[in-house]
Formats: sequence, C-alpha cells, structure tokens
Amino acid sequence: MNEPSSRSGCPIGTTLDCLGDSWSLIIVRDMLTGKARYGEFLDSPEGITTNILANRLSRMEQLGIISKAPYQTNPVRNEYRLTEAGHDLTPVLQAMCRWANKHYPDTWVPPESFMAL
Amino acid sequence: MNEPSSRSGCPIGTTLDCLGDSWSLIIVRDMLTGKARYGEFLDSPEGITTNILANRLSRMEQLGIISKAPYQTNPVRNEYRLTEAGHDLTPVLQAMCRWANKHYPDTWVPPESFMAL
Repeated sequence: MNEPSSRSGCPIGTTLDCLGDSWSLIIVRDMLTGKARYGEFLDSPEGITTNILANRLSRMEQLGIISKAPYQTNPVRNEYRLTEAGHDLTPVLQAMCRWANKHYPDTWVPPESFMAL
Repeated sequence: MNEPSSRSGCPIGTTLDCLGDSWSLIIVRDMLTGKARYGEFLDSPEGITTNILANRLSRMEQLGIISKAPYQTNPVRNEYRLTEAGHDLTPVLQAMCRWANKHYPDTWVPPESFMAL
C-alpha cells in the first residue's frame, strides 16, 4: 500500500492519516453496501458535495484503498471498488456502528448482513 | 450522550460527526494509555498544536466522551479522563491498529496490553 504522509509510526495515527476525515469512511461504507458509481455516492443521505467526493475518491485510489475501472466509454464513466485493503476496513466500521448504536440509541441499526461481513 | 449535529442517522456517519478528524482519536489513544494532562498530550510524537488540542478536548467534553477535573488550584490545572463512552471506543482503535499493522508493516505493533483492553 502507498504510504500516507504519516505523523508517526503509530498504527492509529497512520490510519487517521489515511482516513481521518468525516467523509472517506462514508464512501467506504457505501462501497461495502454495493454502491460503485459517482452518482450513487452523491445520493447518500449525508449529502457529500461533488468536489469533496472527487477529492476523496482520488486520494483513496492513490493510497490503494479503492480502484476504478470504466463501465462505459464515450464519455468514460468509472466504477469504484474497494481493494482488499479497503475491504479490510470492515471491522473498523462495524466497531463504529456498535459504539454509536450503544451511545446514540436513535442511530440506525445496521443490517445483520453488514455486521456479519 | 450529547448528540453531535448529525448528517444522518447512520451510526458510522454519527461516529464520524463526533470523531471524524485526524486528532480526536489520537487523544483518545493517549488517554487509554494513561495520559491525562495537557502537557502530556502535547508531548505525543504526532505534534498536536495547543489550539487544536484545546478545541478537541472541549468538543469531546461537550459530547460526553471525556470529562475533566482539577488536580491543582491556583492556577487551576485539569486532568482529562475518558468517560465510559470514551472507553467504549477501544474496539474502534484496536481495529485501526490491526488494519494499519497489516497494510503498513512499518507501523508500530501495539503492546498486547492495549490490544487486550
């Protein structure tokens, strides 16, 4: 995997250097639940803007967390998929779900299929 | 727990609304490993600045993730501790450690005592 510019050798710090913002893991969540196209990410209820989406997709591709491949030419349109490293973020997201479900009882309970990934 | 201003009811989104930045979970890590005082957080290798530290401590206190209590008067100096909700973030941090250790083999391997918390 491509190294982020890391503040330290701490694995928590390094993860946050890759993904420590409020949008990257939302996009990873969307990909884990089957979304792959630009418009699908824009449709998510959090309301990501096009410039932030483009920035985060490009950054995660550069890091090796996602990859893109065209599903259409003329004009080219890409689909985005998680790499193995991206899929391996699943336990981080599951732990976040458990934390928020416990401490913010109004949050959605994720489908069992997601928690069992 | 006090609600963050949430973008959606998604538990991942809500967690990121609380902690989706590159510093808050670094401070949680420091507290989990025994640090409690302002100067101790400043000494961590990531080099947090005083204004970001003050901002994140205040925000996490407001959310109910940490609490503060004076350990000295005249002048007042506070110690910061994780609340139960803060301690409950441990599995999120452990999952980040496993992810970074796998995909960035140069990152530090955390002490077993931390991974067994």
